[in-house]
Amino acid sequence: MDTAGMDISAIKQSMAETNELFNTEVFGKRNFEALDRIYTSDARVLPPGRLMVTGRQEIKGFWFDIIRSYNAKSAVLCPIDVIPAGEGLVEVGRGVMTAEPAGQPEVQVDFKYVVFWQQEDGLWKWHVDIWNLSW
Amino acid sequence: MDTAGMDISAIKQSMAETNELFNTEVFGKRNFEALDRIYTSDARVLPPGRLMVTGRQEIKGFWFDIIRSYNAKSAVLCPIDVIPAGEGLVEVGRGVMTAEPAGQPEVQVDFKYVVFWQQEDGLWKWHVDIWNLSW
Repeated sequence: MDTAGMDISAIKQSMAETNELFNTEVFGKRNFEALDRIYTSDARVLPPGRLMVTGRQEIKGFWFDIIRSYNAKSAVLCPIDVIPAGEGLVEVGRGVMTAEPAGQPEVQVDFKYVVFWQQEDGLWKWHVDIWNLSW
Repeated sequence: MDTAGMDISAIKQSMAETNELFNTEVFGKRNFEALDRIYTSDARVLPPGRLMVTGRQEIKGFWFDIIRSYNAKSAVLCPIDVIPAGEGLVEVGRGVMTAEPAGQPEVQVDFKYVVFWQQEDGLWKWHVDIWNLSW
């Protein structure tokens, strides 16, 4: 169903819940199974300075590696534009990742991102996810 | 009109022409007016390590600055996935920029990108443009 004909505020609420899962479950609790509720099964992740990652299983491995390597604690996402796009939506946003790398003080990393959202199993999920540094 | 009901191969051909304009006109000839045919008037560019750029006029200044600073010669774009998204499309791709910075040998920079395409004035243009380094 076309998102232009749907209740956009309800969709944005669902999107906010998914983004919050990423912060509190994946980063906060290192619950990588929560990624099932965040990414579509055939999602693509395009991380800065690394190869593209395709499919949820590889994506789980990617985040496991990143979060452990940097001892990351949180990743707060803030949408600044949400554009209905057929059965999906395009989100443009900014975020802050907080990490405590071994033997170093806490660092905060500013990034900006674009996510293409699609619905899967009744949940709004990330189908394409790309970001880079600075706001 | 929903792109899912349109001739996708014709759209892909138009997209390829826009991408080629970016390479040959903007990078090859430094014809920055060609950006009128590449970006929508209220497009967003999210460049790595820099602030988000909003609106075609600012975007022209951004590319003028980048291409002159790096003495960039070409930017070849190669789509690897094109997803119909309502009246637009989401393109996931890889590219190579070639530059000859002053006093240095030619360098090639691999990047990957996501572009959200929309139609404006009968042309397929980039409405959201983000990339980062490595394939």
